[in-house]
Amino acid sequence: MTFDQLWTDLHPVGRDDRSGGYRRFVWSAEDLQCREWFVAEAARRSLDVVTDRNGNLFAWWGNPDASGPGVVTGSHLDSVPDGGAYDGPLGVVSAFAAVDLLRSKGFQPARPLGVAAFADEEGARFGIACAGSRLLTGALTPARALGLTDNEGTTYASAMSAAGHDPGGVGRDEETLRRIGTFVELHVEQGRGLVDLDAPVALAESIWPHGRWRFTFRGEANHAGTTLMEDRHDPMLTYAMTALAANKQARLAGARATFGRIEVEPNGTNAVPSEVRAWLDARAADDETLGILVGTIGKQATDRASRDGTTTEVTPESLTPLVMFDHALRQRLDERLGGVPTLPTQAGHDAGILADAGVPVAMLFVRNPTGVSHSPAEFAERDDCLAGVDALAAVLEELLA
Amino acid sequence: MTFDQLWTDLHPVGRDDRSGGYRRFVWSAEDLQCREWFVAEAARRSLDVVTDRNGNLFAWWGNPDASGPGVVTGSHLDSVPDGGAYDGPLGVVSAFAAVDLLRSKGFQPARPLGVAAFADEEGARFGIACAGSRLLTGALTPARALGLTDNEGTTYASAMSAAGHDPGGVGRDEETLRRIGTFVELHVEQGRGLVDLDAPVALAESIWPHGRWRFTFRGEANHAGTTLMEDRHDPMLTYAMTALAANKQARLAGARATFGRIEVEPNGTNAVPSEVRAWLDARAADDETLGILVGTIGKQATDRASRDGTTTEVTPESLTPLVMFDHALRQRLDERLGGVPTLPTQAGHDAGILADAGVPVAMLFVRNPTGVSHSPAEFAERDDCLAGVDALAAVLEELLA
Repeated sequence: MTFDQLWTDLHPVGRDDRSGGYRRFVWSAEDLQCREWFVAEAARRSLDVVTDRNGNLFAWWGNPDASGPGVVTGSHLDSVPDGGAYDGPLGVVSAFAAVDLLRSKGFQPARPLGVAAFADEEGARFGIACAGSRLLTGALTPARALGLTDNEGTTYASAMSAAGHDPGGVGRDEETLRRIGTFVELHVEQGRGLVDLDAPVALAESIWPHGRWRFTFRGEANHAGTTLMEDRHDPMLTYAMTALAANKQARLAGARATFGRIEVEPNGTNAVPSEVRAWLDARAADDETLGILVGTIGKQATDRASRDGTTTEVTPESLTPLVMFDHALRQRLDERLGGVPTLPTQAGHDAGILADAGVPVAMLFVRNPTGVSHSPAEFAERDDCLAGVDALAAVLEELLA
Repeated sequence: MTFDQLWTDLHPVGRDDRSGGYRRFVWSAEDLQCREWFVAEAARRSLDVVTDRNGNLFAWWGNPDASGPGVVTGSHLDSVPDGGAYDGPLGVVSAFAAVDLLRSKGFQPARPLGVAAFADEEGARFGIACAGSRLLTGALTPARALGLTDNEGTTYASAMSAAGHDPGGVGRDEETLRRIGTFVELHVEQGRGLVDLDAPVALAESIWPHGRWRFTFRGEANHAGTTLMEDRHDPMLTYAMTALAANKQARLAGARATFGRIEVEPNGTNAVPSEVRAWLDARAADDETLGILVGTIGKQATDRASRDGTTTEVTPESLTPLVMFDHALRQRLDERLGGVPTLPTQAGHDAGILADAGVPVAMLFVRNPTGVSHSPAEFAERDDCLAGVDALAAVLEELLA
């Protein structure tokens, strides 16, 4: 079975055998192995591989420049730290499997079909999610992207260059955009909506507005033993209150707020920290709610800082407004699929970036029995994955007829 | 002036020019440079250098085996991350300067005098403070010490070996202990006691009981966007509440509690963490108060964990009970100095480890105008440092007469 073989080959790449999680960060050795896998699968199917100027991969069945624009489907291959096997790869594996399924039925597409793997969707290494698709559409400027640094101080430009890709070419890419007439992204669901609805596959309705804000709490390093509690300017306390406030405000707003990443200076057991940097990930059903949520968390942080004798600085790192997927396209695909549930998602995707740039976009979700994602425990049943491939193939057949 | 020259030579070793702080971790290249400086200063004074089996350095004026035991003075040369210039080095520099002062006066000691630099006082690299003196007295076992690992996974044994010191010899060292009849440690004050008392130098009365506890908060990694706040098991929240509780309980007890070091898994912006490890540094005026303080913080952490759907595990890493310095010795030195203030300290020192092992010990503190320590801002005025050298020389003269 083609689906199983695709999955098996990709399975060991970047996997930590202790945690069972994946570490496939953009332009790393593991990312390059994923790209080699992609190129080999394309070659096995006689698809033409094009790496665009921003490092996004496309494998074409047909020539999008001669008879385009084409229909593109796929997702990404990179992961968060200790991420699951499905987030990203399921969409790429299913795309190749759908090509096989269409061919086995003797289907002849009237337009070119592209399988895509976008670069750096998670933003795990350099901090900006969907960097590959954002560069493609111009939502992220080359200057900003190339100057981003990872934890080791390596810039995006030098990481890209070391991976054999010319950073001089990044930026909005009209040629690639012209080839993408429609984009369909299949993705494992990252919640339990389909469990509650008792269905294997859904169509996406919208992507919640979401973003990342860096909170820098500054205080005064000092000795953890000899400094009176009353004499301290401890930014860890300001951070701790802010993390609790973010949780409370998100609950009150029916939204999401998470502090999952933190860096402490000097991070010594017997030293009051001089600085704590922490990243807020916040999402809400609409732009206004999100703005109020982040504003309230920021204000509570500043209020606490004045009590702690510390300072708080909030730096927006990325913000993606509400994305509504193309309504007519969704209705057409829903009819083709014989009626499936529709779900919103709180997760950003390359599909959202392309939709924002005016590309007609649809998304398919595959049921996730626990709802867990961004974790080694992320999972989808094989039967549901195969139902996803069937649905994707049907959708592509509809769009390519 | 000998004091200034000693200071100037040591000043650049392991200094980060951006922060102005020091990174002199045990058995690192910077630590070895500090040791070279020590050996060179000893040679310049024709003192006999002995490195004991645990890597502690001694420079002897006279032969402690022939006419011992001797009087030893000194401190340590290693630092916390981004530590100050004075914590440790001031005691070693002042020891050499006191030797020079005594010789310039033509003083002839009746017993041998040793200048000491103990290994790994801060425990910044391997997590256990005063490792060199603890190994010397047997308070730390060789098996435990040699298996400690730093952030890179390097063991104490292999770091020691790579630095050219045989780890096979570590452990309680009767020969070295026999040479130390009395120990006097001069140290920069790490609070503002002498500022309030308007005096340059004090004698120490006691060291507060103090220790380190590792708190491991375990939850469930998940997607920061798609996971409902109500469905999370977020250990960051348990940690945040615990950090605030530690601060509050320490204030109520007139004690100290600090979370200055934290490690988060997977530490990704868009992932709810699976695990947060944080280190509690706690100190109090007596053993009972400290026990109650840590117990209360642990209980509040566990209570919060049950609300967060997480778990909390508390692992003691080190605990030093109350140390009272030798009363008769302090009175004798106080009379010799014409009456100086007496202060307790909340910081651990090698002097405390030796006192615990039965060595008669005294400590001298030099005024710190801001009270700041374990920070690049740590400072002492030159005149106060020279007053410290004068006091140390007087004390040695008293003990060596």
